[in-house]
Amino acid sequence: MSHGTLYIVSAPSGAGKTSLVRALLAQLDGIQVSVSHTTRMMRPGEVDGLNYHFVDVATFERMVERGDFFEYAQVFDNYYGTSRPAVQALLAAGQDVILEIDWQGARQVREQMPDAVSVFVLPPSREALHERLSRRGTDDAATIDRRMRDAISEMSHFDEYEHVIVNDDFDAARNQLVGLVLAERSRLERVRDRQGPLIQALLSRVEGVE
Amino acid sequence: MSHGTLYIVSAPSGAGKTSLVRALLAQLDGIQVSVSHTTRMMRPGEVDGLNYHFVDVATFERMVERGDFFEYAQVFDNYYGTSRPAVQALLAAGQDVILEIDWQGARQVREQMPDAVSVFVLPPSREALHERLSRRGTDDAATIDRRMRDAISEMSHFDEYEHVIVNDDFDAARNQLVGLVLAERSRLERVRDRQGPLIQALLSRVEGVE
Repeated sequence: MSHGTLYIVSAPSGAGKTSLVRALLAQLDGIQVSVSHTTRMMRPGEVDGLNYHFVDVATFERMVERGDFFEYAQVFDNYYGTSRPAVQALLAAGQDVILEIDWQGARQVREQMPDAVSVFVLPPSREALHERLSRRGTDDAATIDRRMRDAISEMSHFDEYEHVIVNDDFDAARNQLVGLVLAERSRLERVRDRQGPLIQALLSRVEGVE
Repeated sequence: MSHGTLYIVSAPSGAGKTSLVRALLAQLDGIQVSVSHTTRMMRPGEVDGLNYHFVDVATFERMVERGDFFEYAQVFDNYYGTSRPAVQALLAAGQDVILEIDWQGARQVREQMPDAVSVFVLPPSREALHERLSRRGTDDAATIDRRMRDAISEMSHFDEYEHVIVNDDFDAARNQLVGLVLAERSRLERVRDRQGPLIQALLSRVEGVE
């Protein structure tokens, strides 16, 4: 059974990462986003197991102790984490898996999965980023400035990633992301795993001639 | 100036490599096929500098002595070779360059250009390959058998390549080839080279806040 590839996708808020990943999933089979665990409250419209695995703090902390997380973080009062057994089961079943995590999570995952393919998505300009971060409701300048600082802080780690996609033209950026996955799927080891019988048939000798 | 990527594309006759490469060139800018040098006679309809650089044997041998070729081979009475200075000038100008060469040429190039990205194109089945090799005119069984043996011999080196594309569905195979080029173009070093000013602008601090 061919093993899937693990993708790490990071970006600042406002870079369009979520839309890009959604477009990737709409275009390709055999790839999915890992569902994180969290201790925060479920919001209206969210579905347990789809948006997040919603667990209580005691459960989350037990999972931490067992080493069940590839990466986890505490944001204010809530925990967020990526379950290692869940991801590894998908990979072992030949599924490609995407982790949408920040640079700190990416560092933790990279240490454990050095073959993971990591991608950082950048916005097309400072102005576009500011505009996207401003559009979210009717926030004051201080709030938007804080978001900009957070975004800049996240972006300052772009050079820890193997690939960088500038989300200028959406279709072009989506093609780059899709291309990345297709390129991984055409690697010798993966094709050899998946296409063993074909390759054997192609390479068999011409009968009665040699 | 960002440096281009060198691609090595090999395949047996009948795998559809030429059509795939043509489709790739139709879809992407900034990439071209290297024009080989040859000592064979120009055929009707061929254009010097487009199909091949047609040179005489003395010129070719002088180029060999000067070490001007990435790779060259003698096929029957004719020489064929890939000019190193021509390819390197294109790469230095930021162009991606494709070499359509066989496994022996690929080995020679890989030794000199370890960063070259190599792709082997396989036909979808033994039957399809046989059919494609039979279609070329009205050849006898012995001729077709010889072509099959040559194809099998070439294919036996598929595992020396980083990527393998099975040309089953043409569009899917083309997407894989395009994806490979896009994936290389999204590598950190290339984006950093091309997008230096954007990245600098994105990472500058929020004015008057920090």
